[in-house]
Amino acid sequence: MNKFSIAEIVKGAVALGEEVVIKGWVRTRRTSKAGISFVALHDGSCFDPIQIVVPEALENYESEVMHLGAGCSIIATGTLVASEGQGQSVEVQATALEVVGMVDEPETYPIAKKRHTFEFLRTQAHLRPRTNAIGAVTRVRNTLANTIHNYFYKNGYHWVNTPIITSSDAEGAGELFRVSTLDMANLPRNDQGKVDYAKDFFGGESFLTVSGQLNVEAYCLAMSKVYTFGPTFRAENSNTSRHLAEFWMVEPEIAFANLEDDAALAEDFLKHCIRTVLEERADDMAFFQQRVDKEVINRLTNVVDSAFVHMDYTDAIDILQKSGQTFEFPVEWGMDLASEHERFLSEQHVKGPVVLKNYPKDIKAFYMRMNDDEKTVAAMDVLVPGIGEIIGGSQREERLDRLDARFPDQETADHLWWYRDLRRYGTVPHAGFGLGFERLINYVTGMENIRDVIPFPRSPGSALF
Amino acid sequence: MNKFSIAEIVKGAVALGEEVVIKGWVRTRRTSKAGISFVALHDGSCFDPIQIVVPEALENYESEVMHLGAGCSIIATGTLVASEGQGQSVEVQATALEVVGMVDEPETYPIAKKRHTFEFLRTQAHLRPRTNAIGAVTRVRNTLANTIHNYFYKNGYHWVNTPIITSSDAEGAGELFRVSTLDMANLPRNDQGKVDYAKDFFGGESFLTVSGQLNVEAYCLAMSKVYTFGPTFRAENSNTSRHLAEFWMVEPEIAFANLEDDAALAEDFLKHCIRTVLEERADDMAFFQQRVDKEVINRLTNVVDSAFVHMDYTDAIDILQKSGQTFEFPVEWGMDLASEHERFLSEQHVKGPVVLKNYPKDIKAFYMRMNDDEKTVAAMDVLVPGIGEIIGGSQREERLDRLDARFPDQETADHLWWYRDLRRYGTVPHAGFGLGFERLINYVTGMENIRDVIPFPRSPGSALF
Repeated sequence: MNKFSIAEIVKGAVALGEEVVIKGWVRTRRTSKAGISFVALHDGSCFDPIQIVVPEALENYESEVMHLGAGCSIIATGTLVASEGQGQSVEVQATALEVVGMVDEPETYPIAKKRHTFEFLRTQAHLRPRTNAIGAVTRVRNTLANTIHNYFYKNGYHWVNTPIITSSDAEGAGELFRVSTLDMANLPRNDQGKVDYAKDFFGGESFLTVSGQLNVEAYCLAMSKVYTFGPTFRAENSNTSRHLAEFWMVEPEIAFANLEDDAALAEDFLKHCIRTVLEERADDMAFFQQRVDKEVINRLTNVVDSAFVHMDYTDAIDILQKSGQTFEFPVEWGMDLASEHERFLSEQHVKGPVVLKNYPKDIKAFYMRMNDDEKTVAAMDVLVPGIGEIIGGSQREERLDRLDARFPDQETADHLWWYRDLRRYGTVPHAGFGLGFERLINYVTGMENIRDVIPFPRSPGSALF
Repeated sequence: MNKFSIAEIVKGAVALGEEVVIKGWVRTRRTSKAGISFVALHDGSCFDPIQIVVPEALENYESEVMHLGAGCSIIATGTLVASEGQGQSVEVQATALEVVGMVDEPETYPIAKKRHTFEFLRTQAHLRPRTNAIGAVTRVRNTLANTIHNYFYKNGYHWVNTPIITSSDAEGAGELFRVSTLDMANLPRNDQGKVDYAKDFFGGESFLTVSGQLNVEAYCLAMSKVYTFGPTFRAENSNTSRHLAEFWMVEPEIAFANLEDDAALAEDFLKHCIRTVLEERADDMAFFQQRVDKEVINRLTNVVDSAFVHMDYTDAIDILQKSGQTFEFPVEWGMDLASEHERFLSEQHVKGPVVLKNYPKDIKAFYMRMNDDEKTVAAMDVLVPGIGEIIGGSQREERLDRLDARFPDQETADHLWWYRDLRRYGTVPHAGFGLGFERLINYVTGMENIRDVIPFPRSPGSALF
């Protein structure tokens, strides 16, 4: 391993004039007529590679150095010196260069220097973190994940690992993946000739979770502040740039809290995440700004600097109807808002983040708390310019009789006996929200396709790697 | 939400004599003849509840306070004062007490004060975090998870979310759960009459992952230092206190590293985790020491204070054969060690942690690096007193020809074309290990059953909640 990463060296961990040993992968080599090679060496720790200046005096200069190209792994030893090149503060005057691994058939190396489409890079998901863009995504993703965990830890939340395999389609949030160990070629049947799931691994039907919310509520009503951060699944046959079959979700849940507390948490949390990335990953963000989305830093700064505007769904409908805009989907009270409506509200009307609250009960889930008007529930969505909805949450129905009246059917109520118990034993007002982690990364980086911000994307027809 | 949690108040966030408002759940109420009730109030933030002293002068004293019992939720307002009671530094002299949620039928509330078996509590997984033991487990788990993430982040590692759904049984680590959206009642068949997985969601057979290692190696060879921390699955029909069908695993992977680097990382990492829990969760650890395992803190302190002893597998076999011990499984070179052997080495022979290295190739996975003796591979297990193996790792085979010679069959090699690519393009020596997160929690807390250290355990016949 590197004693000091390139990121640490660039930040001053090693004094000028000292010897350094740096291990990494070659990005480029360029050889001057003066008998010097310049190797751009990368180790993943920061956006920029470090320049290794290799004199022809090295004994393996002709035999090895002159054959180096993108992707080769080397160990460079030399003296750290100030750099006269543009855009770099230090470089290494090599005294030795050891080749660790060459590249087989450099002319067919899939990610040699030339620019590739993101679509092509998806077919090389095992190599694409070696590119500028996906390397930057990886670092931003890591920083976001770390700051999310620490935001919650420092504020007294407990990370609760809710189950991935579940016996219920509790939220009714779309189609499910079945989990089974039954022999598909020879399915056991019961007396009625139906598949006998009693013989399956868990003694009944089981699926991949769509949300940890119901489970984490149980922990909320013991630990007060909790969150999930884990994989969730949708078996939707949607081949779009916004859908994944497997994605990571962050779901905080707070006790003794109402919808206003929930919205305040969402605002503080989102601003904290964005601020941290702007501070800690300035190098990668400069790249996204320059090469991916010219507006991305402005947009993020605007979110951080704005007080989120709160607006009732009913008022939003009014605004949309009076806007004079032509929408693809006509606006009427009771409808679910489409992306075009959300973006109009946030980008045109408010020109900043919006917390939209109190949606019609019929378009929202059974566990959301009924408002006194009996027509709306205490739900909220956070809409941001450039993407629309980024967070969705609600105050939960903590009153047993009201909850019972909202279960979609008796089977669900029976299956969720334990969820009902939470309302029988020391129930309290509580609330929470869900944030799709990849959607946040898309927003923060300006990357367009959700498949480019998760290491190995799963989508219809594809579980490669 | 609480402005200050009970943990913060006990640590001095509020000055004596100031007013506090505390929201939480009643653990116990005891009423003195002098017309005062003492309510032990808990909010999950620390082991001990805080005492609320409630005078009968409160207007709802008879009507409500006198009916409070375990599990009721309340909001207590009063003055923070020094406590004269044993084992508590401060208490609250209540000026108001609002009841938020009572307990339905207190006589049947499943976790009222009396002690329950852990086995019974598993049937009440939605309520058991309200108990002393599972509450303490939840806090220790949270602290361990946080310190793991931060250990890696601060040392320049990237958290890589490797896929949960995979198309390969790459590691061959036991039976797999199938993931499918096929209609089980009406399975599509191909020309040969076999189940047509080409029609399944991902266009082929897919399963739940048993390890993120192979995938994370791809990121290691771009980012240098990476780790996974996510759910993994085993469809083993093992109903023991050490097996779960779904559990969380931590898998770091380091580039330009050999087995010695790997062992050094494992030792430093494990000591760091244990030290953090002993420091940050002293209250919960005192409980485990007192009520669960009288030796737990000694054992942990011993691990932190010991230099891990390195030992070759071949030498260990010799030691075991000459030990004069009678083992259930006779010892001979080439065998996999059983728990009895591991514990003898660590508990009797070394009396401390052991890093056992260089195992026979035939009992280890294909991706482990062949040693020069051609008989052993660069694998290592970390054994600790009290539990045996806690970490298993290896240096990976980075030489393509050697890797090709070790694939179990051509189908595996073909399927893992991308894994082979990593050896074709800038290969480097690299190494890593796996740590079962729940196994670590068992070890740190002294809890015996792995089902008691994960919120909602999944095991054969049970995916409840």
